Amino acid sequence: MPMAVSAYAAPSATEDLVPTTIERRDVGPDDVLIDIKFAGICHSDIHTVRGDWGPQQFPLAPGHEIAGIVTEVGANVTKHAVGDRVGVGCMVNSCGECKNCLAGEEQYCLNGNVGTYGGVDRDGTITQGGYSTQVVVTEDFVLRIPEGIELDAAAPLLCAGITTFSPLRHWGAGPGKKVAVVGLGGLGHMAVKLAHAMGAEVTVLSQSLKKQEDGLRLGADAYYATSDLNTFTDLAGSFDLIINTVSASLDISAYLGLLSLDGALVNVGAPAEPLPVQAFALIGGRRSFAGSMIGGIRETQEMLDFCAEHKLGAEIEVIPADKINDAYERVLASDVRYRFVIDTSTL
Amino acid sequence: MPMAVSAYAAPSATEDLVPTTIERRDVGPDDVLIDIKFAGICHSDIHTVRGDWGPQQFPLAPGHEIAGIVTEVGANVTKHAVGDRVGVGCMVNSCGECKNCLAGEEQYCLNGNVGTYGGVDRDGTITQGGYSTQVVVTEDFVLRIPEGIELDAAAPLLCAGITTFSPLRHWGAGPGKKVAVVGLGGLGHMAVKLAHAMGAEVTVLSQSLKKQEDGLRLGADAYYATSDLNTFTDLAGSFDLIINTVSASLDISAYLGLLSLDGALVNVGAPAEPLPVQAFALIGGRRSFAGSMIGGIRETQEMLDFCAEHKLGAEIEVIPADKINDAYERVLASDVRYRFVIDTSTL
Repeated sequence: MPMAVSAYAAPSATEDLVPTTIERRDVGPDDVLIDIKFAGICHSDIHTVRGDWGPQQFPLAPGHEIAGIVTEVGANVTKHAVGDRVGVGCMVNSCGECKNCLAGEEQYCLNGNVGTYGGVDRDGTITQGGYSTQVVVTEDFVLRIPEGIELDAAAPLLCAGITTFSPLRHWGAGPGKKVAVVGLGGLGHMAVKLAHAMGAEVTVLSQSLKKQEDGLRLGADAYYATSDLNTFTDLAGSFDLIINTVSASLDISAYLGLLSLDGALVNVGAPAEPLPVQAFALIGGRRSFAGSMIGGIRETQEMLDFCAEHKLGAEIEVIPADKINDAYERVLASDVRYRFVIDTSTL
Repeated sequence: MPMAVSAYAAPSATEDLVPTTIERRDVGPDDVLIDIKFAGICHSDIHTVRGDWGPQQFPLAPGHEIAGIVTEVGANVTKHAVGDRVGVGCMVNSCGECKNCLAGEEQYCLNGNVGTYGGVDRDGTITQGGYSTQVVVTEDFVLRIPEGIELDAAAPLLCAGITTFSPLRHWGAGPGKKVAVVGLGGLGHMAVKLAHAMGAEVTVLSQSLKKQEDGLRLGADAYYATSDLNTFTDLAGSFDLIINTVSASLDISAYLGLLSLDGALVNVGAPAEPLPVQAFALIGGRRSFAGSMIGGIRETQEMLDFCAEHKLGAEIEVIPADKINDAYERVLASDVRYRFVIDTSTL
């Protein structure tokens, strides 16, 4: 018998989220039942429920930055036990059989990973996200949250953390490397903390100097305003890696000019509009314009362990459920430092 | 006293090339005097003399695919001796002191490498290219052409060869890797030969199947027409590396869709127009859109040695100097298989 649990969900693409109940499947032999304690609010949640990325089936409870406690496990579960502190990120399943899944890169599952909300689960039901009190997830997609990170500060690591950690690792951020982070929002602030903890020299490229003090406190070595065009001449050829967390359309060719030989500009957000790229900007320094999407399960666990070791969590503002719609407006206005996290005890 | 040598040069951006004489500097202590035997015709020659890439100082003799014999060396020269078979490619000098030069990547010299023609040499003169009977070049920018490659078939290796060899090596073409080559022209036909010799599985992506027989003979394992839209669905997610030799504006996002996880699409040509790129096409498979420009001197020598070892040269049509202007028209009409080479004894 499916279980009804409290949630906040969007009734349609044009209405505010409202308190409701959603159904969770029975705990199967490979499943873990999680008592959700906190759920982060990601900009993607807003894009998705408002239909920016395509039509959805409603009502839809978003939320893919989930932190909680295991309260029940299926008969075959070996990785998690009742009482464990755990998290769930952007996906709750994948085919497990394709080349990419076998390589531990389930986010790039060739048969399509199953999104934590709005995805089609393997049983045909539509998944519902973390703005809710409980969730049932197959054990392989449940992460351990190590001691040393509070559950509320851990929640955003499951999306904002891994989305920036993965490209930083893949493109070799570390000692001797110069990394720039474009945008100091939910993703950007984690990129700064993580790149700094990895030992890279970190520069923030933000529209203005408004958050400069924060940026330096979070671990940046330098901070530049991109509204000042001198930035692009002063920093020409400077960086080994630029992580672009901004989903708006930037002048990609101008940012490519900031890369040194063999440098990469990596988008972790995806503007809907195509981005014009000058081939000369690539060819002149064997530069790459690349993209990266969250990270695999194994790497997500590595990221959580790394954060615990380095005592890192997200900078958060905890809110009760009845502030979710206000929080959405503030996210859209970039008025958050740096992540809203819902206290699900208020649901 | 500068020496006057026979050449074919463009009097202006709008006139045909004509026979003339140009000046070569005295052979300095570090210089090598080369009796040019053959000079390849590169599409870049046409772009440059016609002003497509910016204004030039005229008269200008193009040519950066030079093969010949050493006839004199300066007092300090140790790398080359009279009688040696040698080549000169796209550059004849660089600062030698910047980070990129010190790394052996002179083509990306931060102070600007000196182009073989139309460049500003370190003494302030404008360089003149290989459509000529002799050239004086500092020894560090002179390559050895190993026995086993004819000089005429070697000439195009100095640009078309290294321009494709370098990205194939940099992005790891070899056994177990699937490489696609877009366009089967001067660069493309070398990319096919080289990638095949490196042990990669090679696919040609050409507008039509017109050159299919050639492509397979040159070493391709498969050949697809890009005018057939099924190509883009049939080959989705197939390649580790795509070398794009086409300078026209292609639908980059469509080609990105042909890459597997972590694949790279590398442009070696540079259309003047910016290329629209869908960020989702990058993010969905951690793909890269990159560029590459010729190769360093050390790598160019490696390429020549590799070609000798594998008995590779360019497919050429040798022409006398008075056919240069006709050849230009045929290059623009893609009517060449696969490189015109000027017999400079006809100058």
